[in-house]
Amino acid sequence: MKSVTFIGSGNVAWHLARAMHTAGYEIRCVWSRTMDSAEKLASLVNARPVTDLDAIEAGNDIYLLCLNDEALPSIAGKLRFPESLVAHTSGTLSIDILQGMSGNAGVLYPLQTLTKGVSVDISAVPFFIEASSGGSMQEMEELAASLSARVYKADSRQRLQLHMAAVFACNYSNFMYTMAADLLSDSGFNFEVLSPLIAETTHKAINTGSLAAQTGPARRCDLNVMRKHIGLLASKPEYAEIYRLIARMIINRYHPGILNDAEL
Amino acid sequence: MKSVTFIGSGNVAWHLARAMHTAGYEIRCVWSRTMDSAEKLASLVNARPVTDLDAIEAGNDIYLLCLNDEALPSIAGKLRFPESLVAHTSGTLSIDILQGMSGNAGVLYPLQTLTKGVSVDISAVPFFIEASSGGSMQEMEELAASLSARVYKADSRQRLQLHMAAVFACNYSNFMYTMAADLLSDSGFNFEVLSPLIAETTHKAINTGSLAAQTGPARRCDLNVMRKHIGLLASKPEYAEIYRLIARMIINRYHPGILNDAEL
Repeated sequence: MKSVTFIGSGNVAWHLARAMHTAGYEIRCVWSRTMDSAEKLASLVNARPVTDLDAIEAGNDIYLLCLNDEALPSIAGKLRFPESLVAHTSGTLSIDILQGMSGNAGVLYPLQTLTKGVSVDISAVPFFIEASSGGSMQEMEELAASLSARVYKADSRQRLQLHMAAVFACNYSNFMYTMAADLLSDSGFNFEVLSPLIAETTHKAINTGSLAAQTGPARRCDLNVMRKHIGLLASKPEYAEIYRLIARMIINRYHPGILNDAEL
Repeated sequence: MKSVTFIGSGNVAWHLARAMHTAGYEIRCVWSRTMDSAEKLASLVNARPVTDLDAIEAGNDIYLLCLNDEALPSIAGKLRFPESLVAHTSGTLSIDILQGMSGNAGVLYPLQTLTKGVSVDISAVPFFIEASSGGSMQEMEELAASLSARVYKADSRQRLQLHMAAVFACNYSNFMYTMAADLLSDSGFNFEVLSPLIAETTHKAINTGSLAAQTGPARRCDLNVMRKHIGLLASKPEYAEIYRLIARMIINRYHPGILNDAEL
């Protein structure tokens, strides 16, 4: 049974620690800046909570740093576990920031939106792994495979690209819902009337691919409808700008060459 | 049993004709510009296909015009059924375009992305109705209630606003998936690795509301990560522009006042 310490107790740690605990790893220690947060996660996985970096026990098999991108390099710089596998879970940071911690380094990046307390089927989450050597790659593969059936190798540049793709697919599509909700509330309706539409849009995109699933006035290049919409957005210039830009991209994609610079 | 003629045989007609047929309406006639399309739908609902506007039989209880916004006004202008209820299904056109057809006019707008052959639970689709008189409102309510449990009244301006909200929630969120897929393919991965993320994003937005479900670098105002992403998009200026605009909107929403005009 491999011993593991979690550095960090946020959303990613919350999900990975529980999944690794279930998969049979011995989670020995959870470090967090605040005792409350360390205790909450530690109690779920039968680990010891600590807030002092010096109190982290040495000699565990694995140290997983689940920290935000601002904290990660500085905390990694303060720790050394040269006999262990050390890995971070960031989408954007290079594996090289772990160089000083151990020669045995890796990255374990889950491509999923994770929130404490919102349960997710970790076994279906795609994990992207990287390692500093052949030996650490074997350990990273074993770790990732114990969590999920979908494990891919990706270097730091590919991972940054994946993370950016996820911003569009997750964060920005979600913000489109928020913009829609704002427009709905202007006309006296609740977000809830959009639920079937949102569910069906996603369902279609997953099943047929988003390129085939595209519908709407821009897809049909119905300039009259788009001009009406843009007119309605006169009092919301940022909304109008986003509307116009995305409309132009969709038109150029599905009807290349049809639009001149002055139109829409 | 009420008699119905469908003017149009596209995506909306395909779904509504089948649902009304199932609900016990007698679909007598399906008009389309092309016989092939008229026949395909007519055969599903036991109706007579026609391509000549003069061949549409008079005296049906209901005439439903399921046409695109460009064709709708001109075809409505050629038809008169003064004894019948006439209704269109457009999100953007006023009820007034039906004035010449009958004094008994309505709108039946389904807020859903509908594609021929892709089955949808019509009983869960929100329908927005409008009518030209108290009598026609009663008929419109009866018709909508026979199809769905979610029926709302909306005037032509509210409906245009709803339609625009749907563009953001459906068409534009779907295009975010396409942009993500483009970025993924640049790094050698398939759209398919995003499926769990997309499904979970939608699930969260529907369950907690998109405002609470927002995550990502813009939500955290992590400027370093956003600058890395924008740097990666140097060869795709339209993507960079969309990235920056939406990031700024999210930051201004969740961290008001933090960003000056020069940043990001």
